[in-house]
Formats: sequence, structure tokens, C-alpha cells
Amino acid sequence: MEFSSKLLQQAVEEVALLPGIGKRTALRLVLHLLQQPVDRTTDLAQALVNLKTEIKHCRNCHNISDNDLCEICANPKRNSRVICVVEDIRDVMAIENTQQFNGHYHILGGKINPMEGVGPAQLNIASLIQKVREDKVDELIFALSSTMEGDTTNFYIYKQIDAFKIKLSTIARGISVGDELEFADEITLGRSILHRVPFENSLKN
Amino acid sequence: MEFSSKLLQQAVEEVALLPGIGKRTALRLVLHLLQQPVDRTTDLAQALVNLKTEIKHCRNCHNISDNDLCEICANPKRNSRVICVVEDIRDVMAIENTQQFNGHYHILGGKINPMEGVGPAQLNIASLIQKVREDKVDELIFALSSTMEGDTTNFYIYKQIDAFKIKLSTIARGISVGDELEFADEITLGRSILHRVPFENSLKN
Repeated sequence: MEFSSKLLQQAVEEVALLPGIGKRTALRLVLHLLQQPVDRTTDLAQALVNLKTEIKHCRNCHNISDNDLCEICANPKRNSRVICVVEDIRDVMAIENTQQFNGHYHILGGKINPMEGVGPAQLNIASLIQKVREDKVDELIFALSSTMEGDTTNFYIYKQIDAFKIKLSTIARGISVGDELEFADEITLGRSILHRVPFENSLKN
Repeated sequence: MEFSSKLLQQAVEEVALLPGIGKRTALRLVLHLLQQPVDRTTDLAQALVNLKTEIKHCRNCHNISDNDLCEICANPKRNSRVICVVEDIRDVMAIENTQQFNGHYHILGGKINPMEGVGPAQLNIASLIQKVREDKVDELIFALSSTMEGDTTNFYIYKQIDAFKIKLSTIARGISVGDELEFADEITLGRSILHRVPFENSLKN
């Protein structure tokens, strides 16, 4: 792509470094900003820099937070002894949206993925083991995505805390509510039969 | 969407103001930046602010440029008397890529679109008429997209310069090179028959 301006080129190349954004989309976004009042651009730039320089992580669950302790961990009404293990903040937001969980979270910050150089040391696993070791946990709920990396991570954590005899669970896998059986993949359908629940339970929600 | 951090929320909301980017995509982009070194964010922010505050427009063709006159207008080898009228800089880049045009451009900055409050006064039309009036033009090539707004804009300019008896043309519309006839839309196919070219011409390229 030939640009008539170095400034334009730099802006497009910076935007195109974002994941899932190619040069054409980057150019479209940058030209859009050029047509807007200058405040739009400075506000956007400032919000990104503020986020990156001032953001904190909750010292308890590693969630993104403005304070030392996030709102969830600081809430005395929530049960700190039931901990849901998730990959990142998006999973926390998704689960919070359901309003079905009243415990704490523990954000690993990723999954074990040797191909991308992510081992246990790069994730917030040690602090989770520490919580279990200090007898602060009754139940761990594994809510990582069910991929090879997710299963590896679950298993790694499981081996570390197996000796402590706390309750371990994973979120249920099954057919989505409203989905047609015929379009479900075999593995999910198979699991939904293996892990079937008593009919009375299905009436509650 | 419930955010655990005001800083995160601000950043996501600013990014989500960009066209074609929803809140979910914005969150993904912002979380990506959070995982990168701080330089990435400051470079991106700086490039956008530099672009917006330092960018100039070529005084001749209104193209985005680092200087008072863009590279194309400043090039003495190009024919300033043949002017291609386009909507924005992306069209200039697309035509330049073909290496088939050696004239100048005139960037309107949009199309006449009363529904969105864009009239002739919001576009760089007066300076184009001025060029024609000062007898600086032999040929105008209309290369706006062939929509109702594009046709309206073409016609508006045409009415203003009709008296000057310069050569006027539009880029050819027809079946894309390599396309199957059966999948072409009727209007394009119809035009490609109406505006058929001598067979010898098709052998040249």
C-alpha cells in the first residue's frame, strides 16, 4: 500500500498491529478519525494510555481493577471459599451477567500453551495453589474453555491440589438452551447424555 | 456490559465509537493492548494524535499530504490538465496502484448526500470549478462510485462546468476481469454491452 503521507502511514501501520485488523480496515478507521473533531482522537488516545499506565490488578483474584482489591473480592456478601477459575476478565463478565454465581474468581491470565511459550510460570497459578494450601477454599470450579490447552491447564492445577481434598468441579457442557439436537456436535451431545441431570433440576431454571 | 474498572470501560467505549467496531471487539482489542508492552499503546496513541494534529491537505487536489503540495501534484512529469475526480484518498491509492493514470486527482471528500447533511458546500467542489474556470483543465474523469449519491454529485459538477466545453468522461463500468457473465448483475452487464469497446482495444491490456 502506497501512502501519500508518512503520518498517515504510521497511523495505519500502528492500528493494523491490532489483532484481526488488516491494513484496509486500519485505513478506514484512521480516515474516519480524520473526519471527526480532534477531541475524538485525543480522547481515544488518552483513554488507551490511561488504561495502560494506571490500570491495577486485584491482588486477590488478578482481575482488572481500579483499586487494590476488585469490587467482587471487596464485596463481603460474596463467598470467598468458592472460587471459579477462569482464563480472563471476559469470562468473569460473562459469568457475572448470568447472576448465578456468588463466589469469588481466580483469573489465570491464559492457558498453558507450550506452542506459544506459555507455561505455568507465566500464569497466575501459584497464587491459586497458595490459597488452597492456606485452607481458604472449599470448592474450585474450573471454567476454562474445553480445548486441549484448557484441559491441560485444568489437569496441571488438579495435580497440584489433589492432596488437599477440596471439592472440584467443572462447568457443565451440553446442548445450548434453544439449540436443535440434530445440529449439535457429537462430543457435546455425548457429554450431555453422560452428564444428564435429574428432570426436577431442569424445572428450576 | 458491566466492567470491573472505569479505566477499562472508558477505553472500550472510546474504541467502540469507531465505525464497524462493537463493544465486544473493542474489549478484545483493549485487552490485547493490555497484554502488550506499554510502548505499543503509547506509539499507537501518538501516531493517531500526530496524524490528526499535523496532517495537511494538498492545496491543489485536497489529498492528505505531509506537505503543502502532495507528491502527485508536485511531480512535474504528471499531466496537470487531466484531472480524475474521486471521493477520497482510498480511491487515489486504488487508481495509483493500477499505474494506468498519469494525470492529477481532485479529492471531493465525499459525495452529495442530503440525507446525511452533505451538500456541495461541504465538499471540495468550488475549487474544482475554479480550476476549470481558469482554463487549467483539458479533461475531467469522474471516478465516483456509481450510486445515487455519486451520480448526483457527477451531475451537479457537470451542470456547473457544462459551459466550458472541456472533455468529460467517466470510468468504464462493466464485468470484472475474470468474472463469469452468469453471475453479473443485470445493470452492469447491460452497461458493458452498451459501452462495448472495439475488439482491438481489448488486446492491448
